[in-house]
Amino acid sequence: MQDTQLGRLIGASLGPGDPGLITLKASQALQSGAHWSYPIRRKGAESYALQIALNAGFALPAENSPLIFPMTHDPIKLAGYWDRAATTVLEFLTAGQDVVFLVEGDASTYSTFGHLARTITAKAPQIDIETIAGVSSFNAAAANAGQPLVEVDDTMCVVPAGYGVRWIEKLMTDFDTLVLLKVKPLLDDIIDLAEKHDIVSQCRFIEKAGTDVEKVVEDIRTLKGQTVNYLSLIIIHNPHRERLEIMRGCRKKVSA
Amino acid sequence: MQDTQLGRLIGASLGPGDPGLITLKASQALQSGAHWSYPIRRKGAESYALQIALNAGFALPAENSPLIFPMTHDPIKLAGYWDRAATTVLEFLTAGQDVVFLVEGDASTYSTFGHLARTITAKAPQIDIETIAGVSSFNAAAANAGQPLVEVDDTMCVVPAGYGVRWIEKLMTDFDTLVLLKVKPLLDDIIDLAEKHDIVSQCRFIEKAGTDVEKVVEDIRTLKGQTVNYLSLIIIHNPHRERLEIMRGCRKKVSA
Repeated sequence: MQDTQLGRLIGASLGPGDPGLITLKASQALQSGAHWSYPIRRKGAESYALQIALNAGFALPAENSPLIFPMTHDPIKLAGYWDRAATTVLEFLTAGQDVVFLVEGDASTYSTFGHLARTITAKAPQIDIETIAGVSSFNAAAANAGQPLVEVDDTMCVVPAGYGVRWIEKLMTDFDTLVLLKVKPLLDDIIDLAEKHDIVSQCRFIEKAGTDVEKVVEDIRTLKGQTVNYLSLIIIHNPHRERLEIMRGCRKKVSA
Repeated sequence: MQDTQLGRLIGASLGPGDPGLITLKASQALQSGAHWSYPIRRKGAESYALQIALNAGFALPAENSPLIFPMTHDPIKLAGYWDRAATTVLEFLTAGQDVVFLVEGDASTYSTFGHLARTITAKAPQIDIETIAGVSSFNAAAANAGQPLVEVDDTMCVVPAGYGVRWIEKLMTDFDTLVLLKVKPLLDDIIDLAEKHDIVSQCRFIEKAGTDVEKVVEDIRTLKGQTVNYLSLIIIHNPHRERLEIMRGCRKKVSA
Protein backbone atom coordinates (compact mmCIF):
# COMPACT_ATOMS: atom_id res chain seq x y z
CA MET A 1 0.00 0.00 0.00
CA GLN A 2 1.71 3.15 -1.20
CA ASP A 3 0.65 6.48 0.23
CA THR A 4 0.95 8.80 -2.76
CA GLN A 5 0.93 11.80 -0.42
CA LEU A 6 4.37 10.99 0.90
CA GLY A 7 7.60 12.48 -0.40
CA ARG A 8 10.59 10.35 -1.34
CA LEU A 9 14.02 10.52 0.28
CA ILE A 10 16.88 10.64 -2.23
CA GLY A 11 20.49 10.13 -1.17
CA ALA A 12 22.40 11.96 -3.89
CA SER A 13 26.10 11.07 -4.03
CA LEU A 14 28.03 14.06 -5.33
CA GLY A 15 31.45 12.45 -5.65
CA PRO A 16 34.62 13.50 -3.81
CA GLY A 17 34.58 17.22 -4.59
CA ASP A 18 35.36 17.87 -8.25
CA PRO A 19 31.99 19.19 -9.51
CA GLY A 20 32.58 17.34 -12.79
CA LEU A 21 32.30 14.04 -10.92
CA ILE A 22 28.65 14.65 -10.05
CA THR A 23 26.48 12.19 -11.96
CA LEU A 24 23.66 13.21 -14.30
CA LYS A 25 21.17 11.57 -11.93
CA ALA A 26 22.43 13.45 -8.86
CA SER A 27 22.43 16.64 -10.88
CA GLN A 28 18.78 16.03 -11.81
CA ALA A 29 17.88 15.30 -8.18
CA LEU A 30 19.35 18.65 -7.14
CA GLN A 31 17.21 20.39 -9.76
CA SER A 32 14.06 18.34 -9.18
CA GLY A 33 12.46 20.75 -6.74
CA ALA A 34 13.18 18.39 -3.86
CA HIS A 35 13.95 19.98 -0.49
CA TRP A 36 17.70 20.08 0.11
CA SER A 37 19.20 18.58 3.26
CA TYR A 38 22.90 18.14 3.94
CA PRO A 39 25.20 17.05 6.77
CA ILE A 40 27.15 19.43 8.99
CA ARG A 41 29.48 18.56 11.88
CA ARG A 42 28.06 21.11 14.30
CA LYS A 43 25.63 23.99 14.33
CA GLY A 44 26.73 26.77 11.98
CA ALA A 45 29.50 24.67 10.42
CA GLU A 46 30.07 24.47 6.68
CA SER A 47 28.86 21.42 4.82
CA TYR A 48 31.38 19.85 2.51
CA ALA A 49 28.65 18.03 0.58
CA LEU A 50 26.74 21.29 0.08
CA GLN A 51 29.92 23.02 -1.04
CA ILE A 52 30.35 20.48 -3.86
CA ALA A 53 26.87 21.33 -5.17
CA LEU A 54 27.53 25.08 -4.88
CA ASN A 55 30.90 24.72 -6.63
CA ALA A 56 29.06 22.98 -9.46
CA GLY A 57 26.94 26.08 -9.90
CA PHE A 58 23.74 24.86 -8.26
CA ALA A 59 21.95 27.47 -6.13
CA LEU A 60 20.96 26.61 -2.58
CA PRO A 61 17.14 26.84 -2.29
CA ALA A 62 16.06 29.45 0.26
CA GLU A 63 14.44 26.82 2.43
CA ASN A 64 16.91 24.03 3.24
CA SER A 65 17.87 21.77 6.13
CA PRO A 66 21.37 21.41 7.54
CA LEU A 67 21.42 18.19 9.59
CA ILE A 68 23.92 17.71 12.40
CA PHE A 69 26.01 14.53 12.25
CA PRO A 70 28.65 15.16 14.93
CA MET A 71 32.19 13.80 15.15
CA THR A 72 31.56 11.43 18.01
CA HIS A 73 31.55 7.67 18.46
CA ASP A 74 29.20 7.75 21.46
CA PRO A 75 26.27 5.60 20.29
CA ILE A 76 23.70 7.29 22.53
CA LYS A 77 24.66 10.81 21.43
CA LEU A 78 24.71 9.66 17.81
CA ALA A 79 21.28 8.05 18.02
CA GLY A 80 19.92 11.34 19.38
CA TYR A 81 21.34 13.34 16.50
CA TRP A 82 20.14 10.81 13.91
CA ASP A 83 16.69 10.96 15.43
CA ARG A 84 16.63 14.75 15.23
CA ALA A 85 17.86 14.67 11.62
CA ALA A 86 15.19 12.12 10.68
CA THR A 87 12.49 14.17 12.40
CA THR A 88 13.51 17.28 10.45
CA VAL A 89 13.44 15.44 7.14
CA LEU A 90 10.21 13.60 7.92
CA GLU A 91 8.33 16.88 8.25
CA PHE A 92 8.88 17.51 4.56
CA LEU A 93 8.36 13.90 3.50
CA THR A 94 5.06 13.55 5.32
CA ALA A 95 3.94 16.86 3.82
CA GLY A 96 4.41 15.23 0.42
CA GLN A 97 7.70 16.88 -0.57
CA ASP A 98 10.68 14.94 -1.87
CA VAL A 99 13.89 15.46 0.09
CA VAL A 100 17.35 15.15 -1.40
CA PHE A 101 20.19 14.49 1.05
CA LEU A 102 23.53 15.68 -0.33
CA VAL A 103 26.32 13.15 0.11
CA GLU A 104 30.05 13.63 -0.32
CA GLY A 105 31.66 10.73 -2.22
CA ASP A 106 29.51 7.64 -2.59
CA ALA A 107 26.45 7.16 -0.37
CA SER A 108 27.32 3.49 0.30
CA THR A 109 30.95 4.08 1.24
CA TYR A 110 31.60 5.52 4.74
CA SER A 111 28.69 7.90 4.43
CA THR A 112 26.20 9.33 6.91
CA PHE A 113 23.34 8.56 4.55
CA GLY A 114 22.94 4.99 5.82
CA HIS A 115 22.27 6.26 9.35
CA LEU A 116 19.69 8.75 8.11
CA ALA A 117 17.98 6.21 5.85
CA ARG A 118 17.78 3.57 8.59
CA THR A 119 16.41 6.05 11.12
CA ILE A 120 13.78 7.24 8.65
CA THR A 121 12.79 3.65 7.86
CA ALA A 122 12.50 2.84 11.57
CA LYS A 123 10.25 5.84 12.17
CA ALA A 124 8.27 5.72 8.92
CA PRO A 125 8.70 2.42 7.05
CA GLN A 126 6.32 3.54 4.30
CA ILE A 127 8.81 6.18 3.04
CA ASP A 128 10.38 5.33 -0.29
CA ILE A 129 14.17 5.78 -0.29
CA GLU A 130 16.40 6.02 -3.34
CA THR A 131 20.18 5.96 -3.23
CA ILE A 132 22.11 7.41 -6.17
CA ALA A 133 25.60 5.88 -6.35
CA GLY A 134 28.63 8.11 -6.80
CA VAL A 135 32.38 8.25 -7.28
CA SER A 136 34.50 7.37 -4.22
CA SER A 137 37.47 9.48 -3.19
CA PHE A 138 39.94 6.66 -3.78
CA ASN A 139 38.61 6.03 -7.29
CA ALA A 140 39.17 9.71 -8.04
CA ALA A 141 42.63 9.60 -6.45
CA ALA A 142 43.61 6.65 -8.65
CA ALA A 143 42.26 8.38 -11.78
CA ASN A 144 44.12 11.59 -10.98
CA ALA A 145 47.32 9.61 -10.44
CA GLY A 146 46.84 7.75 -13.71
CA GLN A 147 47.45 4.51 -11.85
CA PRO A 148 44.72 1.84 -11.82
CA LEU A 149 43.56 0.51 -8.46
CA VAL A 150 43.05 -3.04 -9.70
CA GLU A 151 43.43 -4.87 -13.00
CA VAL A 152 42.64 -8.38 -14.29
CA ASP A 153 42.86 -10.71 -11.24
CA ASP A 154 44.08 -8.18 -8.68
CA THR A 155 42.73 -8.05 -5.16
CA MET A 156 42.00 -4.86 -3.22
CA CYS A 157 41.13 -3.94 0.33
CA VAL A 158 39.83 -0.66 1.71
CA VAL A 159 40.46 -0.32 5.43
CA PRO A 160 40.77 2.32 8.13
CA ALA A 161 44.49 2.40 8.96
CA GLY A 162 43.73 2.66 12.67
CA TYR A 163 43.66 -1.10 13.21
CA GLY A 164 47.43 -0.96 13.27
CA VAL A 165 50.47 -1.71 11.15
CA ARG A 166 50.77 -5.33 12.27
CA TRP A 167 47.34 -5.93 10.84
CA ILE A 168 48.14 -3.99 7.67
CA GLU A 169 51.30 -6.04 7.29
CA LYS A 170 49.24 -9.23 7.52
CA LEU A 171 46.95 -7.99 4.73
CA MET A 172 49.96 -7.66 2.43
CA THR A 173 49.89 -11.44 1.99
CA ASP A 174 46.54 -11.29 0.23
CA PHE A 175 46.17 -7.91 -1.45
CA ASP A 176 47.70 -6.29 -4.50
CA THR A 177 46.19 -2.95 -3.59
CA LEU A 178 45.67 -1.61 -0.10
CA VAL A 179 43.70 1.58 0.36
CA LEU A 180 44.48 2.80 3.87
CA LEU A 181 42.04 5.43 5.10
CA LYS A 182 42.52 7.99 7.88
CA VAL A 183 46.26 7.37 8.08
CA LYS A 184 46.95 10.42 10.24
CA PRO A 185 47.48 8.79 13.66
CA LEU A 186 49.61 5.96 12.23
CA LEU A 187 51.51 7.69 9.49
CA ASP A 188 55.02 7.19 10.89
CA ASP A 189 54.34 3.51 11.52
CA ILE A 190 53.10 3.05 7.95
CA ILE A 191 56.22 4.76 6.60
CA ASP A 192 58.36 2.39 8.69
CA LEU A 193 56.38 -0.56 7.35
CA ALA A 194 56.89 0.59 3.75
CA GLU A 195 60.63 0.94 4.35
CA LYS A 196 60.81 -2.47 5.99
CA HIS A 197 59.20 -4.11 2.94
CA ASP A 198 61.02 -1.91 0.43
CA ILE A 199 57.78 -0.60 -1.07
CA VAL A 200 58.15 3.14 -0.48
CA SER A 201 57.95 3.80 -4.21
CA GLN A 202 54.73 1.76 -4.44
CA CYS A 203 53.02 3.99 -1.86
CA ARG A 204 51.21 7.21 -2.63
CA PHE A 205 49.85 9.60 -0.01
CA ILE A 206 46.78 11.61 -0.97
CA GLU A 207 45.19 14.36 1.09
CA LYS A 208 41.61 15.41 0.29
CA ALA A 209 41.45 13.01 -2.66
CA GLY A 210 39.31 14.11 -5.59
CA THR A 211 38.87 17.70 -4.38
CA ASP A 212 40.30 20.80 -5.99
CA VAL A 213 42.86 20.99 -3.18
CA GLU A 214 43.98 17.38 -3.55
CA LYS A 215 47.60 17.02 -2.47
CA VAL A 216 49.69 14.04 -3.53
CA VAL A 217 52.98 13.01 -1.95
CA GLU A 218 54.94 10.48 -4.00
CA ASP A 219 57.71 9.89 -1.47
CA ILE A 220 55.94 9.21 1.80
CA ARG A 221 59.24 9.33 3.71
CA THR A 222 59.12 13.12 3.39
CA LEU A 223 56.08 13.05 5.68
CA LYS A 224 57.88 11.46 8.63
CA GLY A 225 57.09 13.28 11.84
CA GLN A 226 54.65 15.60 10.14
CA THR A 227 51.03 16.25 11.04
CA VAL A 228 48.72 15.70 8.10
CA ASN A 229 45.08 16.39 7.37
CA TYR A 230 42.46 14.06 8.80
CA LEU A 231 41.19 13.28 5.28
CA SER A 232 44.35 11.54 4.13
CA LEU A 233 44.76 8.14 2.61
CA ILE A 234 47.59 6.00 1.32
CA ILE A 235 47.29 3.68 -1.67
CA ILE A 236 49.80 0.84 -1.67
CA HIS A 237 50.48 -1.15 -4.81
CA ASN A 238 51.93 -4.14 -3.07
CA PRO A 239 54.31 -6.34 -5.06
CA HIS A 240 54.47 -8.97 -2.30
CA ARG A 241 51.02 -10.54 -2.56
CA GLU A 242 51.10 -14.33 -2.59
CA ARG A 243 49.63 -15.20 -5.98
CA LEU A 244 47.34 -18.20 -5.77
CA GLU A 245 45.97 -20.12 -8.73
CA ILE A 246 42.74 -18.72 -10.01
CA MET A 247 39.67 -20.39 -11.48
CA ARG A 248 38.14 -18.43 -14.30
CA GLY A 249 35.08 -18.19 -16.45
CA CYS A 250 33.39 -21.47 -17.19
CA ARG A 251 35.91 -23.97 -15.93
CA LYS A 252 34.51 -26.99 -14.19
CA LYS A 253 33.98 -26.52 -10.49
CA VAL A 254 36.51 -28.41 -8.39
CA SER A 255 36.69 -28.81 -4.65
CA ALA A 256 38.66 -25.94 -3.18
CA MET B 1 58.22 20.62 -23.54
CA GLN B 2 54.62 20.24 -24.61
CA ASP B 3 53.85 19.71 -28.27
CA THR B 4 50.63 21.66 -28.73
CA GLN B 5 49.97 19.79 -31.97
CA LEU B 6 49.20 16.57 -30.11
CA GLY B 7 45.75 15.42 -29.05
CA ARG B 8 44.95 14.28 -25.55
CA LEU B 9 43.73 10.80 -24.58
CA ILE B 10 40.75 10.86 -22.22
CA GLY B 11 39.57 7.74 -20.40
CA ALA B 12 35.92 8.50 -19.73
CA SER B 13 34.33 6.24 -17.11
CA LEU B 14 30.64 5.89 -17.90
CA GLY B 15 29.57 3.98 -14.79
CA PRO B 16 28.03 0.50 -14.71
CA GLY B 17 25.25 0.99 -17.26
CA ASP B 18 22.51 3.25 -15.91
CA PRO B 19 22.93 6.34 -18.11
CA GLY B 20 22.13 8.51 -15.08
CA LEU B 21 25.38 7.39 -13.46
CA ILE B 22 27.49 9.06 -16.15
CA THR B 23 29.34 12.01 -14.62
CA LEU B 24 29.08 15.56 -15.90
CA LYS B 25 32.76 15.43 -16.86
CA ALA B 26 32.40 12.21 -18.88
CA SER B 27 29.30 13.65 -20.50
CA GLN B 28 31.28 16.74 -21.51
CA ALA B 29 34.12 14.59 -22.87
CA LEU B 30 31.66 12.72 -25.10
CA GLN B 31 30.39 16.04 -26.47
CA SER B 32 33.81 17.71 -26.76
CA GLY B 33 34.41 16.81 -30.39
CA ALA B 34 37.00 14.22 -29.36
CA HIS B 35 37.28 11.13 -31.52
CA TRP B 36 35.38 8.22 -29.92
CA SER B 37 37.12 4.91 -29.27
CA TYR B 38 35.66 2.00 -27.31
CA PRO B 39 36.51 -1.59 -26.43
CA ILE B 40 35.00 -4.63 -28.13
CA ARG B 41 35.73 -8.30 -27.41
CA ARG B 42 36.12 -9.33 -31.06
CA LYS B 43 35.64 -7.88 -34.52
CA GLY B 44 32.03 -6.89 -35.13
CA ALA B 45 30.99 -7.43 -31.51
CA GLU B 46 28.89 -4.94 -29.59
CA SER B 47 30.59 -2.63 -27.13
CA TYR B 48 29.00 -2.46 -23.72
CA ALA B 49 30.72 0.85 -22.96
CA LEU B 50 29.46 2.35 -26.22
CA GLN B 51 25.96 1.07 -25.48
CA ILE B 52 25.92 3.05 -22.20
CA ALA B 53 26.67 6.26 -24.09
CA LEU B 54 24.03 5.49 -26.73
CA ASN B 55 21.44 4.65 -24.06
CA ALA B 56 22.18 8.05 -22.53
CA GLY B 57 21.15 9.65 -25.81
CA PHE B 58 24.59 10.53 -27.16
CA ALA B 59 25.01 9.97 -30.89
CA LEU B 60 27.94 7.94 -32.16
CA PRO B 61 30.08 10.17 -34.39
CA ALA B 62 30.32 8.85 -37.96
CA GLU B 63 34.06 8.35 -37.64
CA ASN B 64 34.88 6.21 -34.59
CA SER B 65 37.28 3.47 -33.53
CA PRO B 66 36.24 0.16 -32.02
CA LEU B 67 39.35 -1.33 -30.37
CA ILE B 68 39.67 -5.07 -29.84
CA PHE B 69 40.46 -6.20 -26.28
CA PRO B 70 39.95 -9.96 -26.50
CA MET B 71 38.94 -12.39 -23.74
CA THR B 72 42.29 -14.08 -23.40
CA HIS B 73 44.96 -14.28 -20.74
CA ASP B 74 47.77 -15.05 -23.19
CA PRO B 75 50.23 -12.19 -22.57
CA ILE B 76 51.72 -12.29 -26.06
CA LYS B 77 48.35 -12.20 -27.82
CA LEU B 78 47.21 -9.43 -25.46
CA ALA B 79 50.30 -7.32 -26.08
CA GLY B 80 49.64 -7.57 -29.81
CA TYR B 81 46.06 -6.36 -29.44
CA TRP B 82 47.06 -3.53 -27.11
CA ASP B 83 49.69 -2.47 -29.58
CA ARG B 84 47.16 -2.40 -32.43
CA ALA B 85 44.67 -0.45 -30.30
CA ALA B 86 47.35 2.08 -29.34
CA THR B 87 48.43 2.46 -32.96
CA THR B 88 44.85 3.17 -34.04
CA VAL B 89 44.39 5.80 -31.34
CA LEU B 90 47.81 7.36 -31.91
CA GLU B 91 46.92 8.20 -35.51
CA PHE B 92 44.33 10.62 -34.23
CA LEU B 93 46.40 11.90 -31.31
CA THR B 94 49.43 12.67 -33.46
CA ALA B 95 47.15 14.42 -35.96
CA GLY B 96 46.18 16.77 -33.12
CA GLN B 97 42.77 15.33 -32.32
CA ASP B 98 41.66 14.46 -28.80
CA VAL B 99 40.52 10.88 -28.34
CA VAL B 100 38.00 9.77 -25.74
CA PHE B 101 38.06 6.10 -24.76
CA LEU B 102 34.70 4.93 -23.42
CA VAL B 103 34.99 2.89 -20.23
CA GLU B 104 32.34 0.78 -18.52
CA GLY B 105 32.31 1.29 -14.74
CA ASP B 106 35.36 3.07 -13.33
CA ALA B 107 38.53 3.39 -15.41
CA SER B 108 40.75 2.44 -12.43
CA THR B 109 38.80 -0.66 -11.42
CA TYR B 110 39.27 -3.78 -13.58
CA SER B 111 39.23 -1.75 -16.76
CA THR B 112 40.98 -2.07 -20.11
CA PHE B 113 41.91 1.59 -20.04
CA GLY B 114 45.09 1.02 -18.02
CA HIS B 115 46.44 -1.27 -20.73
CA LEU B 116 45.67 1.25 -23.46
CA ALA B 117 47.12 4.16 -21.48
CA ARG B 118 50.35 2.29 -20.67
CA THR B 119 50.82 1.17 -24.26
CA ILE B 120 50.27 4.72 -25.53
CA THR B 121 52.76 6.09 -22.98
CA ALA B 122 55.34 3.47 -23.99
CA LYS B 123 54.99 4.37 -27.69
CA ALA B 124 54.51 8.13 -27.29
CA PRO B 125 55.45 9.39 -23.81
CA GLN B 126 54.65 12.99 -24.79
CA ILE B 127 50.91 12.24 -25.03
CA ASP B 128 48.86 13.79 -22.25
CA ILE B 129 46.42 11.33 -20.67
CA GLU B 130 43.45 12.20 -18.49
CA THR B 131 41.39 9.66 -16.57
CA ILE B 132 37.85 10.59 -15.52
CA ALA B 133 36.78 8.53 -12.51
CA GLY B 134 33.39 6.84 -12.47
CA VAL B 135 30.93 4.77 -10.47
CA SER B 136 31.87 1.10 -9.94
CA SER B 137 29.35 -1.68 -10.44
CA PHE B 138 29.46 -2.72 -6.78
CA ASN B 139 28.82 0.84 -5.58
CA ALA B 140 25.76 0.90 -7.81
CA ALA B 141 24.66 -2.54 -6.59
CA ALA B 142 24.89 -1.39 -2.97
CA ALA B 143 22.97 1.80 -3.71
CA ASN B 144 20.23 -0.12 -5.54
CA ALA B 145 19.97 -2.52 -2.61
CA GLY B 146 19.79 0.34 -0.12
CA GLN B 147 22.49 -1.36 1.91
CA PRO B 148 25.77 0.47 2.52
CA LEU B 149 29.00 -1.28 1.59
CA VAL B 150 30.97 0.10 4.55
CA GLU B 151 30.26 2.44 7.46
CA VAL B 152 32.32 4.03 10.24
CA ASP B 153 35.25 1.66 10.92
CA ASP B 154 34.24 -1.16 8.58
CA THR B 155 36.71 -2.97 6.38
CA MET B 156 36.05 -4.09 2.81
CA CYS B 157 37.76 -6.26 0.25
CA VAL B 158 37.08 -6.59 -3.46
CA VAL B 159 38.39 -9.84 -4.89
CA PRO B 160 37.90 -12.20 -7.81
CA ALA B 161 36.17 -15.24 -6.30
CA GLY B 162 38.31 -17.58 -8.37
CA TYR B 163 41.06 -17.81 -5.77
CA GLY B 164 38.86 -20.30 -3.96
CA VAL B 165 36.56 -20.63 -0.99
CA ARG B 166 39.29 -21.55 1.47
CA TRP B 167 40.90 -18.22 0.76
CA ILE B 168 37.57 -16.38 0.94
CA GLU B 169 36.92 -18.08 4.28
CA LYS B 170 40.26 -16.81 5.55
CA LEU B 171 39.33 -13.24 4.54
CA MET B 172 36.24 -13.44 6.75
CA THR B 173 38.50 -12.93 9.77
CA ASP B 174 39.40 -9.43 8.65
CA PHE B 175 36.56 -8.04 6.54
CA ASP B 176 33.09 -6.75 7.32
CA THR B 177 32.25 -6.59 3.65
CA LEU B 178 33.46 -8.96 0.97
CA VAL B 179 32.75 -8.14 -2.65
CA LEU B 180 33.30 -11.35 -4.59
CA LEU B 181 33.61 -10.81 -8.32
CA LYS B 182 33.11 -13.33 -11.13
CA VAL B 183 31.50 -15.88 -8.83
CA LYS B 184 30.23 -18.09 -11.66
CA PRO B 185 32.73 -20.98 -11.53
CA LEU B 186 32.63 -21.16 -7.71
CA LEU B 187 29.02 -20.37 -6.96
CA ASP B 188 28.07 -23.68 -5.34
CA ASP B 189 31.16 -23.60 -3.13
CA ILE B 190 30.34 -20.06 -1.99
CA ILE B 191 26.78 -21.09 -1.16
CA ASP B 192 28.17 -24.00 0.89
CA LEU B 193 30.51 -21.59 2.66
CA ALA B 194 27.64 -19.23 3.48
CA GLU B 195 25.60 -22.11 4.88
CA LYS B 196 28.56 -23.36 6.92
CA HIS B 197 28.98 -19.93 8.55
CA ASP B 198 25.23 -19.29 8.81
CA ILE B 199 25.46 -16.09 6.76
CA VAL B 200 23.13 -16.91 3.87
CA SER B 201 20.90 -13.96 4.76
CA GLN B 202 23.92 -11.64 4.75
CA CYS B 203 24.78 -12.56 1.15
CA ARG B 204 23.32 -10.92 -1.91
CA PHE B 205 23.87 -12.12 -5.47
CA ILE B 206 23.83 -9.46 -8.18
CA GLU B 207 23.99 -10.12 -11.90
CA LYS B 208 24.92 -7.23 -14.21
CA ALA B 209 25.05 -4.79 -11.30
CA GLY B 210 24.08 -1.22 -12.08
CA THR B 211 22.61 -1.97 -15.50
CA ASP B 212 18.96 -1.78 -16.51
CA VAL B 213 18.84 -5.57 -16.46
CA GLU B 214 20.36 -5.90 -12.97
CA LYS B 215 19.11 -9.05 -11.29
CA VAL B 216 19.30 -9.48 -7.53
CA VAL B 217 18.91 -12.78 -5.69
CA GLU B 218 18.39 -12.40 -1.94
CA ASP B 219 18.49 -16.10 -1.10
CA ILE B 220 21.61 -17.41 -2.79
CA ARG B 221 20.63 -21.01 -1.94
CA THR B 222 18.09 -20.83 -4.77
CA LEU B 223 21.03 -20.59 -7.19
CA LYS B 224 22.55 -23.95 -6.23
CA GLY B 225 23.44 -25.97 -9.29
CA GLN B 226 22.47 -23.16 -11.63
CA THR B 227 24.57 -21.54 -14.32
CA VAL B 228 24.71 -17.78 -13.91
CA ASN B 229 25.95 -14.89 -16.01
CA TYR B 230 29.67 -14.21 -16.16
CA LEU B 231 29.10 -10.68 -14.80
CA SER B 232 27.85 -11.79 -11.41
CA LEU B 233 29.04 -10.77 -8.00
CA ILE B 234 28.17 -11.55 -4.41
CA ILE B 235 28.31 -8.98 -1.62
CA ILE B 236 28.73 -10.52 1.83
CA HIS B 237 28.03 -8.48 4.95
CA ASN B 238 30.03 -10.65 7.28
CA PRO B 239 29.11 -10.60 10.98
CA HIS B 240 32.12 -12.72 11.94
CA ARG B 241 34.95 -10.22 11.47
CA GLU B 242 37.33 -10.13 14.41
CA ARG B 243 37.01 -6.57 15.67
CA LEU B 244 40.35 -5.15 16.70
CA GLU B 245 40.85 -1.95 18.64
CA ILE B 246 41.13 1.08 16.43
CA MET B 247 43.19 4.24 16.74
CA ARG B 248 41.36 7.30 15.58
CA GLY B 249 41.85 10.94 14.70
CA CYS B 250 44.53 12.67 16.66
CA ARG B 251 45.36 10.16 19.36
CA LYS B 252 48.97 9.86 20.24
CA LYS B 253 50.86 7.37 18.15
CA VAL B 254 51.74 4.19 20.03
CA SER B 255 53.80 1.22 18.96
CA ALA B 256 51.57 -1.30 17.23
